[in-house]
Amino acid sequence: MERQSRISRRDFLKAAGVGGAAVAVLGGGATYLVSAVRKEEEVTWDREADVVVVGSGAAGSAAAVTAHHEGNLVIILEKAPAYGGTSAKSGGGYWIPNNFALREAGIQDRREDAIRYMARYSYPHLYDPTDPRLGLPENGYNLIAAFYDNASKAVDFLAEIGALQSAGRLPGNPDYLEHAPENKVPRGRSLGPKKPDGTRGNGAEMMRQMKAWVDAEGIPVLLEHRVRRIVVNDKGEVVGVEAVTQDGKAVTVRSRKGVVFGSGGYTHNRELVLNFQPGPIFGGCAVPTAEGDFIYVAEAIGAKLGNMPGAWHAEIVLEQALEFSSVPNDVWQPIGDSMILVNKYGKRVVSEKRNYNDRTKIHFVWDPVKAEYVNQFLFMVYDQRNADLYAGNYPLPAAGASAPYVISGQTLAELAQNIRDRLTKIASRIGIYRLDQSFDSNLEATIALFNQFAEKGVDEDFQRGAFPYDVEWHSGTFSIPRKDTPWPLNDRPNITMYPISSKGPYYAIILAAGTLDTNGGPVISEKAQVLDTEDRPIPGLYGAGNCIASPTARAYYAGGSTLGPALTFGYIAGLNAAKEPVKQVGRVAEPVAGRV
Amino acid sequence: MERQSRISRRDFLKAAGVGGAAVAVLGGGATYLVSAVRKEEEVTWDREADVVVVGSGAAGSAAAVTAHHEGNLVIILEKAPAYGGTSAKSGGGYWIPNNFALREAGIQDRREDAIRYMARYSYPHLYDPTDPRLGLPENGYNLIAAFYDNASKAVDFLAEIGALQSAGRLPGNPDYLEHAPENKVPRGRSLGPKKPDGTRGNGAEMMRQMKAWVDAEGIPVLLEHRVRRIVVNDKGEVVGVEAVTQDGKAVTVRSRKGVVFGSGGYTHNRELVLNFQPGPIFGGCAVPTAEGDFIYVAEAIGAKLGNMPGAWHAEIVLEQALEFSSVPNDVWQPIGDSMILVNKYGKRVVSEKRNYNDRTKIHFVWDPVKAEYVNQFLFMVYDQRNADLYAGNYPLPAAGASAPYVISGQTLAELAQNIRDRLTKIASRIGIYRLDQSFDSNLEATIALFNQFAEKGVDEDFQRGAFPYDVEWHSGTFSIPRKDTPWPLNDRPNITMYPISSKGPYYAIILAAGTLDTNGGPVISEKAQVLDTEDRPIPGLYGAGNCIASPTARAYYAGGSTLGPALTFGYIAGLNAAKEPVKQVGRVAEPVAGRV
Repeated sequence: MERQSRISRRDFLKAAGVGGAAVAVLGGGATYLVSAVRKEEEVTWDREADVVVVGSGAAGSAAAVTAHHEGNLVIILEKAPAYGGTSAKSGGGYWIPNNFALREAGIQDRREDAIRYMARYSYPHLYDPTDPRLGLPENGYNLIAAFYDNASKAVDFLAEIGALQSAGRLPGNPDYLEHAPENKVPRGRSLGPKKPDGTRGNGAEMMRQMKAWVDAEGIPVLLEHRVRRIVVNDKGEVVGVEAVTQDGKAVTVRSRKGVVFGSGGYTHNRELVLNFQPGPIFGGCAVPTAEGDFIYVAEAIGAKLGNMPGAWHAEIVLEQALEFSSVPNDVWQPIGDSMILVNKYGKRVVSEKRNYNDRTKIHFVWDPVKAEYVNQFLFMVYDQRNADLYAGNYPLPAAGASAPYVISGQTLAELAQNIRDRLTKIASRIGIYRLDQSFDSNLEATIALFNQFAEKGVDEDFQRGAFPYDVEWHSGTFSIPRKDTPWPLNDRPNITMYPISSKGPYYAIILAAGTLDTNGGPVISEKAQVLDTEDRPIPGLYGAGNCIASPTARAYYAGGSTLGPALTFGYIAGLNAAKEPVKQVGRVAEPVAGRV
Repeated sequence: MERQSRISRRDFLKAAGVGGAAVAVLGGGATYLVSAVRKEEEVTWDREADVVVVGSGAAGSAAAVTAHHEGNLVIILEKAPAYGGTSAKSGGGYWIPNNFALREAGIQDRREDAIRYMARYSYPHLYDPTDPRLGLPENGYNLIAAFYDNASKAVDFLAEIGALQSAGRLPGNPDYLEHAPENKVPRGRSLGPKKPDGTRGNGAEMMRQMKAWVDAEGIPVLLEHRVRRIVVNDKGEVVGVEAVTQDGKAVTVRSRKGVVFGSGGYTHNRELVLNFQPGPIFGGCAVPTAEGDFIYVAEAIGAKLGNMPGAWHAEIVLEQALEFSSVPNDVWQPIGDSMILVNKYGKRVVSEKRNYNDRTKIHFVWDPVKAEYVNQFLFMVYDQRNADLYAGNYPLPAAGASAPYVISGQTLAELAQNIRDRLTKIASRIGIYRLDQSFDSNLEATIALFNQFAEKGVDEDFQRGAFPYDVEWHSGTFSIPRKDTPWPLNDRPNITMYPISSKGPYYAIILAAGTLDTNGGPVISEKAQVLDTEDRPIPGLYGAGNCIASPTARAYYAGGSTLGPALTFGYIAGLNAAKEPVKQVGRVAEPVAGRV
């Protein structure tokens, strides 16, 4: 039984926002499965390389470029009809401790300091500053240390060979836990691709450069090749993969030395999300091909799974996710100052200006009396001033434009009623979550209290705007006011808070928990080798990026905490795969079960 | 490399509380791993049966008894040195919808009603009352339906053959979500073992009866046999297991028809807890052998994992868990009325009287600004009246006795200081969690507010005591006041709240999140067949109890929601394994990797 992909090429390209532009997508959003393959006979190889790379995002590209540069024949297999994976759709930042820009500026980013920051953020309930490994499990510590030791080397190497030019930005935006005492260099670790004109580009630019290098070097890229099986020999060594094309043709590719997976997370596999995520997830920014394929094929050959509830969590616009789970964008930081997030009881529950990963975990809070995810959805409520002054900053529609997911009302009561009607309309897809009858009165009280906080400049409940992160990302990037409106700018003491008007109209957007992508999967070693359930490397198998158990565990150190480790461990994987001995492929052992 | 168990027989028996008595345990609490085995040659069988059962708790025993009664040769393999698993240590309740006691009392527990209650509680973010499957995934719905359809049959069958006599209790204690409109029969679904004298017994009595039947029927029970590998033939059918004894000897057991796992969860495997649980877990009530063995051996043959963040969560006494992760008991419901739970900021965060599973999830709340599990520990604070009036109700020491985990102080300030000192003492094992400097002043304010609530009888923050569950479990079971103290009984309007004294001494116990056991693992079908990653049954492999992905998902329907499905799916597994065709064992295929 072979279940075919239901993601059309057209849908993929739309969702991937090819060219860097985020494009809204209509479509089914269904996940799909492809059946396992079991063969008794020997494999006949359609293609052969030294190193086979699965996935063409930052992790896969870094591995491919590195292995090729080391003198190896490399083949890249990409499931999607376009190069670059989720990386090409991303902001393109990569967080690299002790990077060239810091060094050039004379800013010390010591190994011990950077490791402490990562350890404390990733393992808060284990962190022990007096322990040589800081209280972490051995492999967890080693991965963080290997990241520090190789991150800067990786980007310097990529620049040197001409595969990816990087630009710093100093002093730079604040890290995502900029105020922790363990963070000694809270700005400047994030790099990005440097465009030919010297300015800093986004993920599309990053992947444009890497693809250009891959093409110039003649590395074959097989698009629309979904890897559905890892082939091992009778010693248990990985000797190749079997892919399937969009038209259902099986293609076997021998890897003389090794296979590197950089094939993305499982955001768009509903079953994996239900079985492993800590709470309700409605979609994410990852390209639609991020369906956790590596989890299935690696599990079939005995890989150990780790960090499975992990994700780069982010709030997303619910109604976009209900249309197609691969959403055009996440709500990086809710827009504006006369704006709040409230739950079904009309109450604020979080600092709206905190980073998306940490902030989004509030959606998973379980109310033990009501037996519900009490913040399953948060309603981003704002006034006309906010709508106009910050128009066009996603998810606010551009000036004069509208968006179907924006709910409005002339009064707060009308807004509440219209939210109720909207929830009724989508009732079959959101579980038991409805506005409570207390929403209306609580919302009024919440706004009154928020307005007091705004006048005073102090959010006594959630410390909104009390940290550099909140203020700088707000004022510098996401909530820059337009100059062509009659509305007053924020003259109150806290730039992130301004009293919400006592007069309508008012607006609301329903936010749900989502991901940039998940980041749990097979566990790797500090050499990027995939480990089996006894912590032994599976010979010839490597992984990096969102398809593996992230070395960051459940923390998100700063912008680029996604792509920084992806590039670094991709580079490490490429280096090590290139050094592997050639494997024999006499008798081919068959996994008992396998699939994508 | 074979890593040996570090759980001694003595430690196991202590932790298991053999005989039903909970005994405190000293010891290492280390988890351990046993290495994989790979053989090229054919297996030589040491033993042979029609149906091999792994684990001797409620699930395994129900399967063994049923398969034997169907005319099969059965062998039971038990990793521990004693029969009965965690079931023997439990309260012994089993939640059985539409059971004989309800029917005899003329109480209708309709299929549709019971299924709705379970569906709404287990899948709150998917539940759709208008959908034929109520919005649930197909297998999720089928499992709940199969549970309803077979639960009562299973206990009636066990009673009829003399393996387990059951007693009802009507009207009975309230379910754990007794006030949901979907719960049409909120009392009376819980049964328990009926002792020879006609009274209701606990888990020790339950397992005594089942073991007596097993012994009387001559079913071999091999203790201290840890299954570390599933053996499959070249068709991928399960044909046996390989166990290892405490002295390291390998024992192979052929299963002509099938193998049923009922081998417990993964509470005492720190790595699995870190990789799959939603937040910090410090231990649990499960016997020390609950280390997730089935996850490794089933994964090695391609089983699909589900409900992995799931557990029967429960608060436990932190300092007991730090001594040995298999704790003697959980804090079912914090004891008394002049008692509150507060976090490191001295604030209440939950209704202290809500059920342990739902209540404990509050420990996983992540504060996005502080980047910490803000309720990682809760401090159970109470006064002298509470200590005396409810002495001896766990975790309160008996009258005149003391317990090392109780912290005291003559004043609230002294109590706070002594808590700080205690946290310093265990600092290397609790991560970054320390009392905030606001603890002292907030605690005073929290008590003042709580005392107002107590006088009024209304907990305006968390609705403590507003539901039958809170009141009846408090007054009827856990907080029955002693009659031999000079302290006043609760004469306030809410029996669960009484003003905390303005005079010391005061006491505190540190509570952490733990489990009765986890309940994620391989996914089963409604026939209790273990499914592969394509939802195909793995021929000859069955599972039930805490070792599989619980049909209840993350909900805990009522007391006995653990053992009810364990007995039921054990029974289903036994019936279906008994009907399996005999498997050939010519060539034996080897999993590429396997381990316990």
